Amino acid sequence: MKNNTYKVSIIGASGYTGSELARILVNHPEVEIINITSESHKGKKFSDLHGQFSGILDLVLVSANEVDVAGLNVIFLALPHGVSMEFVKKWQDSGIKIIDLSGDFRLSTPEVYEDWYKKDHTFPEGFEQAVYGMPELHEESIRKASLVANPGCYPTASILGLAPLFQTGKVDPKGAIIDAKSGITGAGVKASNTTHFSNVNDNFKAYGIGNHRHTVEIQEQLSFLLKKSVYLQFTPHLLPVDRGILATAYMSIDGEMSQEKLDKMYQDFYRNKPFVRLRNQAPSIKEVRGSNYADIYPFWDDRTKRAIVVTAIDNLVKGAAGQAVHNMNLMLGMEESTGLNQVPMQP
Amino acid sequence: MKNNTYKVSIIGASGYTGSELARILVNHPEVEIINITSESHKGKKFSDLHGQFSGILDLVLVSANEVDVAGLNVIFLALPHGVSMEFVKKWQDSGIKIIDLSGDFRLSTPEVYEDWYKKDHTFPEGFEQAVYGMPELHEESIRKASLVANPGCYPTASILGLAPLFQTGKVDPKGAIIDAKSGITGAGVKASNTTHFSNVNDNFKAYGIGNHRHTVEIQEQLSFLLKKSVYLQFTPHLLPVDRGILATAYMSIDGEMSQEKLDKMYQDFYRNKPFVRLRNQAPSIKEVRGSNYADIYPFWDDRTKRAIVVTAIDNLVKGAAGQAVHNMNLMLGMEESTGLNQVPMQP
Amino acid sequence: MKNNTYKVSIIGASGYTGSELARILVNHPEVEIINITSESHKGKKFSDLHGQFSGILDLVLVSANEVDVAGLNVIFLALPHGVSMEFVKKWQDSGIKIIDLSGDFRLSTPEVYEDWYKKDHTFPEGFEQAVYGMPELHEESIRKASLVANPGCYPTASILGLAPLFQTGKVDPKGAIIDAKSGITGAGVKASNTTHFSNVNDNFKAYGIGNHRHTVEIQEQLSFLLKKSVYLQFTPHLLPVDRGILATAYMSIDGEMSQEKLDKMYQDFYRNKPFVRLRNQAPSIKEVRGSNYADIYPFWDDRTKRAIVVTAIDNLVKGAAGQAVHNMNLMLGMEESTGLNQVPMQP
Amino acid sequence: MKNNTYKVSIIGASGYTGSELARILVNHPEVEIINITSESHKGKKFSDLHGQFSGILDLVLVSANEVDVAGLNVIFLALPHGVSMEFVKKWQDSGIKIIDLSGDFRLSTPEVYEDWYKKDHTFPEGFEQAVYGMPELHEESIRKASLVANPGCYPTASILGLAPLFQTGKVDPKGAIIDAKSGITGAGVKASNTTHFSNVNDNFKAYGIGNHRHTVEIQEQLSFLLKKSVYLQFTPHLLPVDRGILATAYMSIDGEMSQEKLDKMYQDFYRNKPFVRLRNQAPSIKEVRGSNYADIYPFWDDRTKRAIVVTAIDNLVKGAAGQAVHNMNLMLGMEESTGLNQVPMQP
Repeated sequence: MKNNTYKVSIIGASGYTGSELARILVNHPEVEIINITSESHKGKKFSDLHGQFSGILDLVLVSANEVDVAGLNVIFLALPHGVSMEFVKKWQDSGIKIIDLSGDFRLSTPEVYEDWYKKDHTFPEGFEQAVYGMPELHEESIRKASLVANPGCYPTASILGLAPLFQTGKVDPKGAIIDAKSGITGAGVKASNTTHFSNVNDNFKAYGIGNHRHTVEIQEQLSFLLKKSVYLQFTPHLLPVDRGILATAYMSIDGEMSQEKLDKMYQDFYRNKPFVRLRNQAPSIKEVRGSNYADIYPFWDDRTKRAIVVTAIDNLVKGAAGQAVHNMNLMLGMEESTGLNQVPMQP
Repeated sequence: MKNNTYKVSIIGASGYTGSELARILVNHPEVEIINITSESHKGKKFSDLHGQFSGILDLVLVSANEVDVAGLNVIFLALPHGVSMEFVKKWQDSGIKIIDLSGDFRLSTPEVYEDWYKKDHTFPEGFEQAVYGMPELHEESIRKASLVANPGCYPTASILGLAPLFQTGKVDPKGAIIDAKSGITGAGVKASNTTHFSNVNDNFKAYGIGNHRHTVEIQEQLSFLLKKSVYLQFTPHLLPVDRGILATAYMSIDGEMSQEKLDKMYQDFYRNKPFVRLRNQAPSIKEVRGSNYADIYPFWDDRTKRAIVVTAIDNLVKGAAGQAVHNMNLMLGMEESTGLNQVPMQP
Repeated sequence: MKNNTYKVSIIGASGYTGSELARILVNHPEVEIINITSESHKGKKFSDLHGQFSGILDLVLVSANEVDVAGLNVIFLALPHGVSMEFVKKWQDSGIKIIDLSGDFRLSTPEVYEDWYKKDHTFPEGFEQAVYGMPELHEESIRKASLVANPGCYPTASILGLAPLFQTGKVDPKGAIIDAKSGITGAGVKASNTTHFSNVNDNFKAYGIGNHRHTVEIQEQLSFLLKKSVYLQFTPHLLPVDRGILATAYMSIDGEMSQEKLDKMYQDFYRNKPFVRLRNQAPSIKEVRGSNYADIYPFWDDRTKRAIVVTAIDNLVKGAAGQAVHNMNLMLGMEESTGLNQVPMQP
Repeated sequence: MKNNTYKVSIIGASGYTGSELARILVNHPEVEIINITSESHKGKKFSDLHGQFSGILDLVLVSANEVDVAGLNVIFLALPHGVSMEFVKKWQDSGIKIIDLSGDFRLSTPEVYEDWYKKDHTFPEGFEQAVYGMPELHEESIRKASLVANPGCYPTASILGLAPLFQTGKVDPKGAIIDAKSGITGAGVKASNTTHFSNVNDNFKAYGIGNHRHTVEIQEQLSFLLKKSVYLQFTPHLLPVDRGILATAYMSIDGEMSQEKLDKMYQDFYRNKPFVRLRNQAPSIKEVRGSNYADIYPFWDDRTKRAIVVTAIDNLVKGAAGQAVHNMNLMLGMEESTGLNQVPMQP
């Protein structure tokens, strides 16, 4: 039924980004999943790990070492940071297009990486090739890239929410505050005290105050837009939900502003961007759940002279696997929204 | 992009069955949604009611009276019982195919309806035309039907779980106990004490003990299979989840039985049924969430000589909108699984 | 067993503040609940409305008109705003102490009330008597008060979190941003789209951006501390939990500051305040659930020169019924923490 | 303020039974907690492990080896099964009363234990001393016991729900089916795939079908009442809630029965039992949450001739720590409900 023009491999089966990639790609009309890898579960079926795929995707998991890249068009790295860079290094010269969903190549330099990730980078050369894979900002570079660093989930919501304001240049480079809230899948599939049901359910808390590593990723991209160094406040919180990020951003504005001007600014910036929906009321995370949409609501508070921008995404789709497929579509020259027509699931 | 061969209308926009029909049909390759109706919200956009459809389905809602059935192939009635029958009556002679998602024509006779639903039936003639829309049991009748009564959510899970055992005939017609648990969407979109978050969250309870009206629907279908009058115990419970039904059914078995025999019985019964997945461990409701699958796990307890069958469905999909689309596919002669390739969403 | 020195009445049985008052007072060693009122449920037992009280508090509900205040020491008004003022008016001269849990007398003047609550005030004289019932700020006035206006839930968390900073005076009166998140009980017991389980569960959203009426209540109390007019940004959000408020407050600081100085400032301000717990890590709402504690975590971000203060309370206890009992204890001359020894319930 | 007549130690601080014991005992008027132990966290404060106790119970954790039993009246063992037996053995001759919350001494013989727990028992002599600590069934034995085996959570709900029927003797010893549903805390504090938020939230599943070890515990106690060997079907399920068990039990009845007779049977059996509340409608788990109540609703279905009994408890209180304190009260000769006046927390 499929055209199956393109052949892809997913490196890393056990995490949520791996299973979300599979959920999207299995119905993508132009793609065939050739293999999925797992070191700890090789020999099992993918559907043994993820029961929801029973009868849908029963591929036997293989070791990453068994993957023959020769016949592939794209490799998705759904691995922890620190591990991913090894595979980029290994496959850099293979000519295959690589989309890395880890944090290993999102920042501008190995030095910044080492400063915020607190570990050495073993493939610093990769930074020159890597393109930051946010299609709304870097579409042309992504089309030509051989290595795409897929953005972090918080940065996706935060940058999309603030980009129009920073591009115009009329903002204080130190004035932005982003109060962000994420579902628990952002903490990964690994069982820990953080992810224990009874520590999350009916609960809510802030974490990483003042030092979360997504801060610098957001700062770098907004600096790129503003053409000045940006310093911002970023505070993540943990929601008792599976999926979804809601970022509430506050920005004092110098000079004239009104709701109409603000709306216009956002409409202009996001014209013809199929996955950004500008809303006229504050979106909820369930209105984007399971889909690749970013819903953005820019609000002008004339009493306080602040712009407040609320952005909602699904952290596993727009914030990870969906954005990765979007990048793949661009890299392979397909229509950008191919295979990304999932309707948000509410309720 | 679509072939758009068939034109459909959804009568009743505000409920969950209405929005789920839209979620599925908007991506169905052979169908175009011509209109969606609402009496209380006409003039608004569908996406005003269901924000998740912003930019996807912005159709303006019309009154059901404005629907011109002439150009349509199928009408879905996503209405409360008691209301639905009026539209069946109105459109019975139009030649259009009708799929009724209410309980108005699921039972065998108007008398049984009036006995369990405690209200008069205003279109008793409809019972003769109506086919019980469970494809795994009545595929051939559905293909020829002009009016399909789409099964209830609890009956879908309960009947699918027990059908193979009742068809073989080796069961006590009074011996089945079904302990069923449903997500809150089963109680509908209407705000009430029952659906108030704080009465549901972190909570769980039984209701309708001994007298839930789905009891008779299950009994009738199992009687049809057993060719004897079946009386069973059905106890529904309310889960603090949005979607999903899990039915745990208990059945004492006369004569020889083993896990192997039980498995074989289920495999034979469900051979070539694309939406039934026989599992080798107890399924969870999230493994089918958002999809049209029914996951069934038959277990033989040799210590107690009982078969225990666990069945999981998404009440809004396999238990409502998905099954309705499955019925439509059959009624219109399409491949039965067209447009129903949603992968279960976990997490 | 009890000393039962004091006799109290709860006006308004059906809401959450009413049932929480009962939960606390039924075990308060110095208090007897004489009656509980309800206009719509009079004649029923309190435990018919709130099944958790079966066998614990089976008092028959009476009309507020039947309450004889002569024998009472304290009346708690657990009523909607707009209704409460009528009862304050009615009982103002009775000599009985009144604790009003509505918003009717929390603000400084009837004019401010009418501006933010968008309704006329029918007992403007009450503002002169009313004391803002936040014991950490107004203990002495509360001890002498005949009418206490019990603070709102968001203001309780917000003011407690920021009070030490505003009292010192080194802050920009327009610089505070409060990003607050509340459990659904804050929206009340009434069934509505807002409180429907499937609109809340696994969901999250902002609301009332720029115009929530608790903004002015917070501004007034912080202005009182700063001795200057304060204007602040307050953004509430709806959490998929029953109880709890977490307020994350951001404040740029003029002049020298450090973590040590900030800690010292908070320790000094809250010395001998039994229900404020200064934490050395960000608290979660479950760590205070069901209790009268406010957990506060002041953090100094030297990179951005901002103080970030996270405050967690149970909106129904510290933000309503518990604070009301605290006020009662002060008004009646008891030890302030009497009957408020509930240990937070986690998990 | 406390009389502090009795001195107790809690062995095992990190689990939920440990923290629940502390939550109850810290407000018990006749008890002082002398020490709490932890091997892996010794040296930390109890409130470091359980933040909700900050400022309430900041006791420094010690090793169990440092506990001097000489000055103690009661020791609570809040340990995993297999570990607990070692401490019973160690302290058996000390004269101190021991309440073991593990499964090590709940069954009738070491052989039955080894059969269902699949491990050797290292202190078989303990079975002779051990009394099954369900006060509603064994009050007199508990009063005299030196070692109490605190019942399992599922057995507490299941046995209390069925005991009156089995005592009368008119039931089929192989006819009972118990379909039980538990909150996730029943799976313990340990992080695992089972307890990962995203595997539990919005999800539901059955587990341990046909072989859960609580089956035999229930069978033994009901056999004791019926004076015949009982074999029953027990199916546990995992609810997406923190606390609570709801057991729905089905029992065919021989001979005459009616709702009135059934009610009378339960009223007679539970007369003067302070923690059993017979309800006239099906209870929800939140109606008992945080409290020591067992709410029971016996229902007679005349159509199917079955008794259906719904029982709700808090698994951590009535199913663990609360029942343990109840046992302590009896063992020490206090009024049985002392310190157990927690009102259920709803919402």
